[in-house]
Amino acid sequence: VSTEVSAAIDRAQAGHVRELARLVTAIENDPAMARTISQELLQYPGAGHLIGITGPPGVGKSTTTSALVSALRAEGHRVAVLAIDPSSPFSGGALLGDRVRMQEHATDADVFIRSMAARGHLGGLAAAAPAVVALLQACGFDWVLIETVGVGQSEIDIASTADTTVVLLAPGMGDGVQAAKAGILEIGDVFAVNKADRDGADTTVRELRSMIALGNWSGWEPTVVSTVASRGEGIPELREAIAAHGAWLMESGEQQERRRHRIAEEVRALVIGQVDGAFLQQNDEFHRLCDQVAAGAIDSYAAADAMSRRILQAQTVVE
Amino acid sequence: VSTEVSAAIDRAQAGHVRELARLVTAIENDPAMARTISQELLQYPGAGHLIGITGPPGVGKSTTTSALVSALRAEGHRVAVLAIDPSSPFSGGALLGDRVRMQEHATDADVFIRSMAARGHLGGLAAAAPAVVALLQACGFDWVLIETVGVGQSEIDIASTADTTVVLLAPGMGDGVQAAKAGILEIGDVFAVNKADRDGADTTVRELRSMIALGNWSGWEPTVVSTVASRGEGIPELREAIAAHGAWLMESGEQQERRRHRIAEEVRALVIGQVDGAFLQQNDEFHRLCDQVAAGAIDSYAAADAMSRRILQAQTVVE
Repeated sequence: VSTEVSAAIDRAQAGHVRELARLVTAIENDPAMARTISQELLQYPGAGHLIGITGPPGVGKSTTTSALVSALRAEGHRVAVLAIDPSSPFSGGALLGDRVRMQEHATDADVFIRSMAARGHLGGLAAAAPAVVALLQACGFDWVLIETVGVGQSEIDIASTADTTVVLLAPGMGDGVQAAKAGILEIGDVFAVNKADRDGADTTVRELRSMIALGNWSGWEPTVVSTVASRGEGIPELREAIAAHGAWLMESGEQQERRRHRIAEEVRALVIGQVDGAFLQQNDEFHRLCDQVAAGAIDSYAAADAMSRRILQAQTVVE
Repeated sequence: VSTEVSAAIDRAQAGHVRELARLVTAIENDPAMARTISQELLQYPGAGHLIGITGPPGVGKSTTTSALVSALRAEGHRVAVLAIDPSSPFSGGALLGDRVRMQEHATDADVFIRSMAARGHLGGLAAAAPAVVALLQACGFDWVLIETVGVGQSEIDIASTADTTVVLLAPGMGDGVQAAKAGILEIGDVFAVNKADRDGADTTVRELRSMIALGNWSGWEPTVVSTVASRGEGIPELREAIAAHGAWLMESGEQQERRRHRIAEEVRALVIGQVDGAFLQQNDEFHRLCDQVAAGAIDSYAAADAMSRRILQAQTVVE
């Protein structure tokens, strides 16, 4: 298997897009393949910029991502976009429109666009995304943009483990911003107030800046830019803010810190994913224990203890 | 500890609201206490109706929940509301207003209202919510309504492990409904089109009904009602739809099935939570392994394997 995977990675690195897409699918769906690919990628240490793009629905995330891709392509970079699909059935409606907006890059061989689903097994997305990023970087995509379509915690977690996290807001979200300021300010390195041609954009920018001014920033103080992504306005400023943050990451040593944090989250997600997968293998015992809880013979904690023991015993036998 | 917990449960059962609130806090924040409380509750097998209420932001979830509480109180029931706080910093804005709307029940000793946060440790909410529900039922709250403020997968999962899941929609969400119909139809036992005095309400109801008519329902076919919750309109019909679904649950045996599913989800969440907690106890080893990944000496999967082994050894020693 390892030789085949190695050959597939070679082809993907040589620019074979379908091979790259197949490898991404394998990482997403096949834990054993993900493991092999991850081992093979050890020889290509990841290098490049990882940008997270997040924000509430309707704020123009895909339009902004698309404009940013154009800006980076104009500089000669190869760019990959990972769009994290919503984990909520209520936000599914935005999806089709988003993909259509990214179509302008569809024929560019130096742009790779891919959706990843947040639904499914616990730890799945958090475990798979870093391996996909490593693969993309090994294939020469020096910029990887992770765009979250959904607003669930898992999607935001992924955006916020990027080197630089861009949070998009739109005018007229003032109240929400006030209420949620702690959460949002924690996440963003760069804030872009998009749709800046609309009423209230100045107020949103001002409020955001005063909220940031109140913070006690020992390191990087978040930047605020205004954009009208649909017309490309403010995109050079956004690009510059990202570059400034990137320079700070290098100087401050924070780049290494973020990479470590990312690795820790990945390892944790892999362990959780293994445990979650083990429930399927121990299905009979799991059902027997749940029956006992249903009958009132034991409580759920006792069942959980017994289940942990069983999973761990099974893992020991395998070794 | 067990005697103290037992005495606290006695007081909560006697109507001591602050004691009940303290026990809920203990379940949320203190795994050891949650375990003891869960054991003590074994002698009070849960009985009552568990209703999940979910839907996209702005649809009127809290107003509808509040109206439903009034209807159930008028029948003489004791009602508890668990409001699941958003896991996303972007949806935090709705929170304060929601809580204010529930204030009309604040002085009613037979209504218990409580927020639970979806953020925090993996498996946390899914593990804690069933224990809280068991406690509330043991304290004589025969109806427990779980209202999700957020729209993340974890909140929806909890709503959908209820006996009856009510999905709220509002007029003019037609496109979204179409795109996400599979996901929404999977979840809801009863659909309420709220704000039915607005334009397009009839269309939304009609679309929903035709989507349901296309389905191949072997058991319960979802019901659709129209409500204007702010004026109490349609609430009797909503109450009746919930009662009809409840009767079906009993007749069909599905009640037992749902309870089993809930237990399985709880046990799984407890195991995941234990594993997640073990990372803190094995922090030095975890960091050492992540350093090796950062240095390119091992890949993340090898680190995850080593970490699983370490967690297993620690748990085996404890026994």
